[in-house]
Amino acid sequence: MFSQLYRFLPKDSVLLSDEAVRPYECDGLSAYTQRPGAVVLPNTLEEVRKVLQFCHRRKIPVVARGAGTSLSGGALPHKEGILLSLAKFNRILKIDPISRTAQVEPGVRNLAISQAAAPFGLYYAPDPSSQIACTIGGNVAENAGGVHCLKYGLTVHNILELKVFTIDGEWLTIGSQALDSPGYDLLALMTGSEGLLGIIMEVTVKLLPKPEQVQVLLAAFDDITKAGTAVADIIAAGIIPAGLEMMDNAALRAAEEFVKVGYPVEAQAILLCEIDGNTEAVNKQVAQVTTLLEHAGAQEIRLAENEQQRLQFWAGRKSAFPAVGRLSPDYYCMDGTIPRKHLATVLERISELSKTYGLRVANVFHAGDGNLHPLILFDANQPGELQRAEEFGGKILELCVEVGGTITGEHGVGMEKLNQMCVQFNAAELTQFHAVKTAFDPDRLLNPEKAIPTLHRCAEFGAMHVHHGQLRFPELERF
Amino acid sequence: MFSQLYRFLPKDSVLLSDEAVRPYECDGLSAYTQRPGAVVLPNTLEEVRKVLQFCHRRKIPVVARGAGTSLSGGALPHKEGILLSLAKFNRILKIDPISRTAQVEPGVRNLAISQAAAPFGLYYAPDPSSQIACTIGGNVAENAGGVHCLKYGLTVHNILELKVFTIDGEWLTIGSQALDSPGYDLLALMTGSEGLLGIIMEVTVKLLPKPEQVQVLLAAFDDITKAGTAVADIIAAGIIPAGLEMMDNAALRAAEEFVKVGYPVEAQAILLCEIDGNTEAVNKQVAQVTTLLEHAGAQEIRLAENEQQRLQFWAGRKSAFPAVGRLSPDYYCMDGTIPRKHLATVLERISELSKTYGLRVANVFHAGDGNLHPLILFDANQPGELQRAEEFGGKILELCVEVGGTITGEHGVGMEKLNQMCVQFNAAELTQFHAVKTAFDPDRLLNPEKAIPTLHRCAEFGAMHVHHGQLRFPELERF
Repeated sequence: MFSQLYRFLPKDSVLLSDEAVRPYECDGLSAYTQRPGAVVLPNTLEEVRKVLQFCHRRKIPVVARGAGTSLSGGALPHKEGILLSLAKFNRILKIDPISRTAQVEPGVRNLAISQAAAPFGLYYAPDPSSQIACTIGGNVAENAGGVHCLKYGLTVHNILELKVFTIDGEWLTIGSQALDSPGYDLLALMTGSEGLLGIIMEVTVKLLPKPEQVQVLLAAFDDITKAGTAVADIIAAGIIPAGLEMMDNAALRAAEEFVKVGYPVEAQAILLCEIDGNTEAVNKQVAQVTTLLEHAGAQEIRLAENEQQRLQFWAGRKSAFPAVGRLSPDYYCMDGTIPRKHLATVLERISELSKTYGLRVANVFHAGDGNLHPLILFDANQPGELQRAEEFGGKILELCVEVGGTITGEHGVGMEKLNQMCVQFNAAELTQFHAVKTAFDPDRLLNPEKAIPTLHRCAEFGAMHVHHGQLRFPELERF
Repeated sequence: MFSQLYRFLPKDSVLLSDEAVRPYECDGLSAYTQRPGAVVLPNTLEEVRKVLQFCHRRKIPVVARGAGTSLSGGALPHKEGILLSLAKFNRILKIDPISRTAQVEPGVRNLAISQAAAPFGLYYAPDPSSQIACTIGGNVAENAGGVHCLKYGLTVHNILELKVFTIDGEWLTIGSQALDSPGYDLLALMTGSEGLLGIIMEVTVKLLPKPEQVQVLLAAFDDITKAGTAVADIIAAGIIPAGLEMMDNAALRAAEEFVKVGYPVEAQAILLCEIDGNTEAVNKQVAQVTTLLEHAGAQEIRLAENEQQRLQFWAGRKSAFPAVGRLSPDYYCMDGTIPRKHLATVLERISELSKTYGLRVANVFHAGDGNLHPLILFDANQPGELQRAEEFGGKILELCVEVGGTITGEHGVGMEKLNQMCVQFNAAELTQFHAVKTAFDPDRLLNPEKAIPTLHRCAEFGAMHVHHGQLRFPELERF
């Protein structure tokens, strides 16, 4: 059947052999692998449309793929489906310094946008750790964040317009170049929909002027709770840092061993606080933050003395994942969010769970917006360790929900967190999600079996708050 | 049939007589009037749920209403339907100064939130001109903006969580108290959906710390194009004012006659530019903006010397609509957005249209984000004038679309701009909107016949870019 793809695609745009499709069998969540029926690499919009219409007619699943850096299995192929690589759509179509926007194809790398905008003194704000590799289509599909999203928002806050194909090959313009768009907000709906609603073919992003001044403070604490207090204090003072990151001892020690940036390895936690803006405001806020850090009990506070040192402070943070990877044959990166005020409690509970499961954990987080990335260390070659790591991870996410948070900050649900979606949402909410899916893709061909679990799966998982035909709404108790 | 409402609602919560329902026959767009079959004013969530289930079973239309300040007919009743007033849900449930959020019922007035948050040094940023009267439920339904949304965003950027009833009485929690929410972004989808997708029963809004310093500059120009250039220059310099507003001679003269705030009545245009933030940054930016205004050819630049004068500068702007209302028996307020760079062209074209239609127009706009509010002056008692005003307004909106803008910035589509939606969107896009509606309200009972026109209506209006079974996508021409 897949050989019919040659009818409308050039020979080198269709990969069918086992060997040829193997490089596409997983994404950044390498614990899951699956070879697709076929991989296609179309060159033109018309070719993409034909692929979609082919799949739509024959009810063949379609999984879109950018750079394959998803950490939740978002680009994991479907066994009977087509893996649609958008790698060839890698052109920056327009940079407009007046309206401060860039129009780009989905396969353009995140960092390439900022590089192209640099001559105009502009940049694209969201900066996932994988920004050197990950592409903007995937960023939109996952509503990617990054170190700077505390101040500058997630992907959804930094895009204006999308052009997308629906599963039946219709071409939609979503959002607009102007302030707001009439009709339902499909721009936000499509952003973070993990490839389940449409295929993103063009993105207009906002560009920001580079700040006049950037400063980074590094603060070391002998107790992780004190670091948590410092975070709360900074935010409570009305300061919005460009980035506010925390690493615990395990994470900062691993980073230091890996990249040798001079982190204080005895500290139980370090905070990195970046302030940007105009020079006077930055200087004043650096002084304010320094005082707050001192009051919170920081043992040591360093201000990066120059751009080189600033980049060095960040180099440790940015290499934290691979650095932790060196401590253990495998690690499992979690991604939960919590209201900031529960930071200390949650860390304590994670530490208890670590003992229960007999697995070490290193903590790296976007502390400013309560986005945790616990890295669970394990060895997949030890029988049962992968399963224990997954169970441990699941418990962490359920803990996030328990304190009023969510099971994903920026990595998406994908294949990975389907069970935890049953904890996060009740049957009515999941049913509403499925209805929205049906509005775009009634045959469920786009990235099937991901992101939104079926009610059946939740019932099996045992976590669904089944209503037994009764509405439960605790809010009523107010009355 | 409506008398059955008494079965589950207290007597004083149901209005049936012609006299009793008359006050609800229109909203802020008073050119349209319609009495509903019944008005209900429920007191509890349970009562609201019963009303919805009653309507759902009997296929009765439901129109929700807050304060009725909509300028696009969003709260216009349906002849055979129930007008669901949420006026009794007016409690602020919680102010949390630590997480900087407020949980409020939909009938709470916009300004009341900031008043309740003031003791904590906090406020709610979106500030529609009607903020003294309009309620947060309506703000969410219309994705309301205001003078400060240039810097602080629209309603959608300032809310975290919604609790809503679906038409069949299901209770959904949408969004979350944390950074981001998994699943599809129904929070943004619901925001601005004009009452067509669900009934908003609780809103968690973000609160912001009051800025340390606020300054306002007033600049007068002898030519409106120069004022437009000044706007572009300020934005191009990387400055994001808290507000950046323009008024043309007709508008500023009317405002001056009405409130006597000392506006320079000979000016062809004035700009009001508010800068907020920390004191040093504000002082520096005020100096920068002053230089830019001088270069752009401002004849006069005034800095408000104290808080009283600052409020006076704004008092003129905030009273512009009623002030213009004194120039003429009636006026019609438009609400289009355009990319800022087309400001001068669009103003010129509006001025030409004004001559063509023989109707005066006064221009007030959120210049910073390209959101125009031309006020068309007419006399409804002169035969044909209302119709001419509506036609003129339609042309202005189509002009906005032509230059890459949209037909509404912050007032919504409602009853008013259904025809212009046919200009803004093609058949595939409108079809997708209807599919989304079906995912929430398959019987089309919630606020029917508003916001999204049927394809039939567009065909009658003659503006639909019908595809004749062919996909048109000009983007393909690139290849």
